[in-house]
Amino acid sequence: MTDATSNTRTMLYEGKAKVIFEGPDDGTLIQYFKDDATAFNAQKKDVIKGKGVLNNYISEHIMQAVGAMGIPTHFLARINDREQLIRQLEIVPIEVIVRNVAAGSICSRLGLEEGEELPQTLIEFCLKDDALGDPVIAPEHIFTFGWASPEELETICEDTLRINDFLTGLFHAIGVRLIDFKLEFGRIEIDGDIEIILADEISPDNCRLWDIHTNEKMDKDRFRRDLGGLIEAYQEIASRLNIRIPDISKIEP
Amino acid sequence: MTDATSNTRTMLYEGKAKVIFEGPDDGTLIQYFKDDATAFNAQKKDVIKGKGVLNNYISEHIMQAVGAMGIPTHFLARINDREQLIRQLEIVPIEVIVRNVAAGSICSRLGLEEGEELPQTLIEFCLKDDALGDPVIAPEHIFTFGWASPEELETICEDTLRINDFLTGLFHAIGVRLIDFKLEFGRIEIDGDIEIILADEISPDNCRLWDIHTNEKMDKDRFRRDLGGLIEAYQEIASRLNIRIPDISKIEP
Repeated sequence: MTDATSNTRTMLYEGKAKVIFEGPDDGTLIQYFKDDATAFNAQKKDVIKGKGVLNNYISEHIMQAVGAMGIPTHFLARINDREQLIRQLEIVPIEVIVRNVAAGSICSRLGLEEGEELPQTLIEFCLKDDALGDPVIAPEHIFTFGWASPEELETICEDTLRINDFLTGLFHAIGVRLIDFKLEFGRIEIDGDIEIILADEISPDNCRLWDIHTNEKMDKDRFRRDLGGLIEAYQEIASRLNIRIPDISKIEP
Repeated sequence: MTDATSNTRTMLYEGKAKVIFEGPDDGTLIQYFKDDATAFNAQKKDVIKGKGVLNNYISEHIMQAVGAMGIPTHFLARINDREQLIRQLEIVPIEVIVRNVAAGSICSRLGLEEGEELPQTLIEFCLKDDALGDPVIAPEHIFTFGWASPEELETICEDTLRINDFLTGLFHAIGVRLIDFKLEFGRIEIDGDIEIILADEISPDNCRLWDIHTNEKMDKDRFRRDLGGLIEAYQEIASRLNIRIPDISKIEP
């Protein structure tokens, strides 16, 4: 893995592609983007130099735009090439997957062809649990086990559909089809009320992005399917979004 | 398999445990109960002499009682030891699973202990598709792919919860805990309206039934888990429900 531990801060959590450290102030955390790439629940692993930096900049750009739409996010500020200051949340243990076009796991699971336009946008839920392989769940499971309340899930779905519309437009403008993406949410207490806010990241690591004209994959499927050129694809996304990225060749891990 | 084909009627569909033939009148079918036992999506198979007869009689008993509650079912009449006259439906391609206590596939899927009381009754949905292994789906999938409308699914869930309450009471009265069960529904046109009605069967083949005092399994898990004594368990259920069953040893396949 990328060496994210060479400092004196307290590491709170290490995920597959990010590390969470204590933040400078109460209620804040630092989110560190690693260069680690994993797929198929970490059965496939590699380190791709510069990926974390690209995701940090791209996610900053998108999270700020989503925040400007009036959807609260955990993003506070980018600190440096690999780190963001974020708000501390209680993470809702659900991966929210938005699918506009069939691709990835849903194809074998439900017998669909990759690239098939879905009859309507589909929101899927998976339990965020690596040991269980993030199983598909339904709202019925979420309510039975108290992973979120019906009101919280309603907020999550409303925000998710707005973000889908926004991102579909954003990527369309730069010649990219938004096939699917994954979101995570958390809870935060604001003035005594518990509110749902967007967490995690939005980057080519958790979106499927296909070039509108060529259908070329510009996302983590380049790693999952050994297509090569992942960094170049992420750089192309950043470039089309007019995000200034530092010279990756000079980036330290 | 049991020989269900030694007659001149037209077979319309052969499933794992039942065969559907054309019925005598328009809008009717004949449902034939085989002795075949399968588990784990038919990876495990056997023939258990008399099972089909027991399921035929037990399901007749329960379907009539459910019909008497005001929940419409496809059951019209038992014809003989192995056959029922049923109404022809357009089957909704969803398996509706009702769980009061954790057992079976949900334990490994969501990391639960067998026998764990669920925080509340859980309705799960699976796509009825053997080739895909009947994957777990959510209402979101059902609506996206048009497998049922929101109004249909609401009717299905309302009926399902009423049936759960009824069956829980029925089995409690005979010293049996209703752990979980599976239902299927279909559509039928009645006076120009499309209505949802209960289909398939309700028997120890698709319920988990544990003795209230000993937790002994009285259902198809005796086959799935090689516990033996399946016929004796099904006979015990029939006997406690006061259903008169013919002498299984004299039954022909």
